[in-house]
Amino acid sequence: MATINDIAAKLGVSKSTVSKGLNNATDISEEMRKKILETAVELGYSNKRMMNREKKLCILVENMDYSTPNQFGYDIILGFKQMAEPDGWIVDVMPVDKELQRSMPYGVFMIQNGYQGAFVLGFTLIDSWMAEFRTSKIPAVLYDNYVSGNFRIASIGCDSQEGYDLAMKHLISLGHRRIGLISGPLESYIQKARYNAYLNALSKHGLEINDENIGMGYYVSDSTKKHVQRMYDAGVTAIFCSHDIRAISAITECQERGIRIPEDMSIIGFDDLPMTAYTDPPLTTIRQDRLALGKTGYYAMSCLLNNVAIGSILLRASLVIRDSTGPAPERV
Amino acid sequence: MATINDIAAKLGVSKSTVSKGLNNATDISEEMRKKILETAVELGYSNKRMMNREKKLCILVENMDYSTPNQFGYDIILGFKQMAEPDGWIVDVMPVDKELQRSMPYGVFMIQNGYQGAFVLGFTLIDSWMAEFRTSKIPAVLYDNYVSGNFRIASIGCDSQEGYDLAMKHLISLGHRRIGLISGPLESYIQKARYNAYLNALSKHGLEINDENIGMGYYVSDSTKKHVQRMYDAGVTAIFCSHDIRAISAITECQERGIRIPEDMSIIGFDDLPMTAYTDPPLTTIRQDRLALGKTGYYAMSCLLNNVAIGSILLRASLVIRDSTGPAPERV
Repeated sequence: MATINDIAAKLGVSKSTVSKGLNNATDISEEMRKKILETAVELGYSNKRMMNREKKLCILVENMDYSTPNQFGYDIILGFKQMAEPDGWIVDVMPVDKELQRSMPYGVFMIQNGYQGAFVLGFTLIDSWMAEFRTSKIPAVLYDNYVSGNFRIASIGCDSQEGYDLAMKHLISLGHRRIGLISGPLESYIQKARYNAYLNALSKHGLEINDENIGMGYYVSDSTKKHVQRMYDAGVTAIFCSHDIRAISAITECQERGIRIPEDMSIIGFDDLPMTAYTDPPLTTIRQDRLALGKTGYYAMSCLLNNVAIGSILLRASLVIRDSTGPAPERV
Repeated sequence: MATINDIAAKLGVSKSTVSKGLNNATDISEEMRKKILETAVELGYSNKRMMNREKKLCILVENMDYSTPNQFGYDIILGFKQMAEPDGWIVDVMPVDKELQRSMPYGVFMIQNGYQGAFVLGFTLIDSWMAEFRTSKIPAVLYDNYVSGNFRIASIGCDSQEGYDLAMKHLISLGHRRIGLISGPLESYIQKARYNAYLNALSKHGLEINDENIGMGYYVSDSTKKHVQRMYDAGVTAIFCSHDIRAISAITECQERGIRIPEDMSIIGFDDLPMTAYTDPPLTTIRQDRLALGKTGYYAMSCLLNNVAIGSILLRASLVIRDSTGPAPERV
């Protein structure tokens, strides 16, 4: 653990200057303050020492709604707080955008606010702070993202493989053999994980892997527009969609083209968003227990804060069967 | 949660009889007592209710030494206790053999002893209690084993893929291209995981997968006797061994045949057993942090006891470079 002395030695300044920098005093230059904070991050200076009156964690949120109970992030944040607050932690929820990320490095943001760890929701590879997680010494738990080799960073998520195995079994029991996937681009860690889970589930059941049955696209409605009819024409009778939103878009697309669900095509989502119980027809989907995800996030954080270097925790998946899946049609 | 009433109703006996059975009273028949316990297990009767004076967990150990600090299980058990006991748990360590497993079902053993959860070390597929974990309602954390679909069972272990990626990078940087694997049989969950990690690590680095470079065998010394010379003759210059014990056997085998380590052959183990620092030459191996494994076991148990259905936790692996690996030899 680096001390104020280490920072002072590295910068060739006095301890009191370093202390001023760490405590946001106004009688040193902005440039020096920045240097001190950045060096503190580099050396792994402990926030605990700096902010020993307070135990503070933050939840960083990007690309995810969380303000009302039927939004995806709400229960995740609630679950995390339900575990962390009884343990004496103050938990701040911080919306993060690209501009904030450009304005200062992640490590400086954390030290400046006295956060001892971050629970990171909804980041993608284009978020500039993601790169910092490779080397950051501040504990962080990433939801649906993974960084290899850094003992201070853990990942949590739902077990995509278990989910797709359940869904594949369900479809096969309904007579489906030609089963497609519509997914976002594979640069995303979680899209890649689900893509692999789809391929594994096919092989496990001895079904053919065929590129024709797979469709990718960054924009949700563009990707369903492009692939749904094409797959239908190619004889696909059931489609996995990598997220519920994509599945709902696929349902709309089918309806516009007169493809009946589930008579002509079965559709399966992933997430079990609250709204999926009320779509027409209600969506069969793989459930992520979001409250449990939040709690798991805190367990992972506890491990890291106790120097137990876990890499990942996977939560069990379950299959919620509603009306968007049915017996495979007899088609030629 | 089932109650005494539920058990009584199912068996058609009085509540007081059930209560006697659960509390090991002597004035009911042995047969009835057994029936009551087995029904309690079947219905998911909660131990907590039965043993509400005590919080008790057990660590079930089979095929693993743990009595002295340089044995594999010692630190795992220590780590678990270091987390559990401050939380008020009594932790019993129970050696388990095939005979105990034959003498009573796992669920009965747990209820009878008032254990609310089990941390399970060293079990293999031939342990008869393993089958019960598929349906057991009592929380259990399995080390290096996995059961799918049961929300009361979690797995913990070291990330084999991360470990083999590190080891593969190390060997490639030393100029190795033909890299073998000596492994136990793939019926074992963990042997299969490492086998897959080996194949993935080869593909990731664009190296050829060749069955000739892979050798399996249940008995350690038989498998090294059979495969080491054969692989050497086939041009293999480095061998992954799925456990340190196998790696040490491979070293012995090489030495008996005049194959120098690391000049003619590099050897890498898995586990970082304490003795591997003192073999001749000291062994390069993938480290499992056993104290952290034990702590992780308790975190996983905490999740299950709080109804957070995690499936698996993977701990980070690290590579300990000693003298059993060196530059690839120039051979034809």
